[in-house]
Amino acid sequence: MFKAIVSASTLRDALDSVSVLVEECKIRLNEDELAIRAVDPANVGMVDLSLEAAAFESYEADGGVIGVNLSRLEDIAGMANSDDLIQLELDEETRKLHIQIEGLSYTLALIDPDSIRQEPDIPDLDLPAEIVLEGNQMNRGIKAADMVSDHIRLRVDEEAEAFYIEAEGDTDDVDLEITREELIDLTAGPADSLFSLDYLKDMNKAIPSDAEVTVELGEEFPVKLHYEFGEGMGHVTYMLAPRIQSD
Amino acid sequence: MFKAIVSASTLRDALDSVSVLVEECKIRLNEDELAIRAVDPANVGMVDLSLEAAAFESYEADGGVIGVNLSRLEDIAGMANSDDLIQLELDEETRKLHIQIEGLSYTLALIDPDSIRQEPDIPDLDLPAEIVLEGNQMNRGIKAADMVSDHIRLRVDEEAEAFYIEAEGDTDDVDLEITREELIDLTAGPADSLFSLDYLKDMNKAIPSDAEVTVELGEEFPVKLHYEFGEGMGHVTYMLAPRIQSD
Amino acid sequence: MFKAIVSASTLRDALDSVSVLVEECKIRLNEDELAIRAVDPANVGMVDLSLEAAAFESYEADGGVIGVNLSRLEDIAGMANSDDLIQLELDEETRKLHIQIEGLSYTLALIDPDSIRQEPDIPDLDLPAEIVLEGNQMNRGIKAADMVSDHIRLRVDEEAEAFYIEAEGDTDDVDLEITREELIDLTAGPADSLFSLDYLKDMNKAIPSDAEVTVELGEEFPVKLHYEFGEGMGHVTYMLAPRIQSD
Repeated sequence: MFKAIVSASTLRDALDSVSVLVEECKIRLNEDELAIRAVDPANVGMVDLSLEAAAFESYEADGGVIGVNLSRLEDIAGMANSDDLIQLELDEETRKLHIQIEGLSYTLALIDPDSIRQEPDIPDLDLPAEIVLEGNQMNRGIKAADMVSDHIRLRVDEEAEAFYIEAEGDTDDVDLEITREELIDLTAGPADSLFSLDYLKDMNKAIPSDAEVTVELGEEFPVKLHYEFGEGMGHVTYMLAPRIQSD
Repeated sequence: MFKAIVSASTLRDALDSVSVLVEECKIRLNEDELAIRAVDPANVGMVDLSLEAAAFESYEADGGVIGVNLSRLEDIAGMANSDDLIQLELDEETRKLHIQIEGLSYTLALIDPDSIRQEPDIPDLDLPAEIVLEGNQMNRGIKAADMVSDHIRLRVDEEAEAFYIEAEGDTDDVDLEITREELIDLTAGPADSLFSLDYLKDMNKAIPSDAEVTVELGEEFPVKLHYEFGEGMGHVTYMLAPRIQSD
Repeated sequence: MFKAIVSASTLRDALDSVSVLVEECKIRLNEDELAIRAVDPANVGMVDLSLEAAAFESYEADGGVIGVNLSRLEDIAGMANSDDLIQLELDEETRKLHIQIEGLSYTLALIDPDSIRQEPDIPDLDLPAEIVLEGNQMNRGIKAADMVSDHIRLRVDEEAEAFYIEAEGDTDDVDLEITREELIDLTAGPADSLFSLDYLKDMNKAIPSDAEVTVELGEEFPVKLHYEFGEGMGHVTYMLAPRIQSD
């Protein structure tokens, strides 16, 4: 059983955060939250999303799992205005999801969850540095790095008490320094890792520019990015595997 | 003889309504109105346009016929600001149309009207249902249908007193209900027909989102769409042949 | 030695005026100004740019020459907001340009100036007519000409005291008349020349629509276009060779 009403903007934010990594996913319709975990086909980037029951206008679920095509569901949600409410109701027998938006009814055929790639276990990592910054600061560093390289280096300078987003190209280099004063928060620690820029660009697309992003970072370790949406009742964690630094 | 002055926005609305169906057309320069009738190459969609002499700042014509390339004429009209006036004057000898827009003169070579496909006779049909709605309601249904199918079904439910825009895809379905209360007007009657979505999308492109659209509908019969532009002095009727419903 | 601070918008205007003609150029870092001269690969269009030291927030230079990739430098300047300041500093040893924009550091590898096409000598021409008009008037004529031809004719009618931008296509013609009253200034004289529209379109892209453009024109002679940017402290002159008129 699943029956819920949610604002179009909250649903869209949720879908966008997952669709940057995968085309199809399982959605767990838990009693107290809607939850999605997914890993991209190359096993490099993972996402863990939860949207609390309280983020919905109304929410009833009993622990089922459905499989969905994300771009299809995004198209439907795109038919709504941001403040429209979207009604979702699962028809258990036909395995279809009925979606209602202001007089418009859409019947979405679901995908057999067993045909969808297994959900990843996102490991607990005790990463030594934590940087909290605005989405648009992250965005600026990623855009700059993209001018010169396919890789991006994130590091903390413990003495300078600053966070660095860097990229080295064949001829040109880029270096964005964000000082403790410019950051929302900084827990300095030994942290210096290299990542695929494509993945970070994709994740960054889903992060609202005014969101507070928490970056957990280590030395040649995966990075974790957290942010919230849906008035704090939606939670996204990305994890991205590091590239081995050649030097 | 033809000499007229018209606002750029009125001329553009007129041209757009025809150019969605054909690339070239005959324009009848009648004494009391400018008139265009055209049918698309596949004989599926027709348009009947008239723009009253009163819609022009000034209008003199004596019943001639000219042939024009519509996209060329749209490009020229596109050089004007919306509230600019466009002067049109036919040079009978050279068969060229002189177009003046605020100091800019454009000499447009006309097309021999005899080389253009014959104008269709748009049949009088006594269709049992008439739905009056806003352009943007129509647009919403067409956009939704386009997510799942190449066909679109328009129907009236006489008991529910509502108009339905529907589409059935291979796996997903869409259904937009517009009730009598949401419609501008409804004359209910037996009406249920299927149409090619591509044609309806094209016609819809020309319909201003705030226009009042009158839909005349029957059972497996052509649909007629009427709307006005140019402060009520321009009149467009589209007619679209039905698709045979397979079920 | 070169060290300067300049507003992003001024730097972008300078780069844009040159990049419409060439991909790489030499920049002369003179004591009192930054100067660029360049000619396109086909020797048809030339640009002569100077940006006075006073146009910078601060400026120190001793006459060196650097070679740059313009689109790369434009991308970097594009990372700044219009009112951001951009710091430029030449590292003589590594032959790299260090660019700083609000915490972002970019190290740009320079190009050996000797590998860049020689700077043209832009001839002094005593052209008989001078037309001063707004960038958007020029733009309108170019856009209109582009509908019918690859060439554009600029001429002055000494009796009518007007400037004409004209184009003749295979079937259609375009003629924009700008009278003395509509012009900012006119020194009439025998002037009638034909130009490649592609070049004039490119030059026009760099000219701000609210700039005052001075056109120097003769009979089958090159045209010179002047405009200013950077609050009057940046100066651009384009010279474009004429096409031989076939009639």
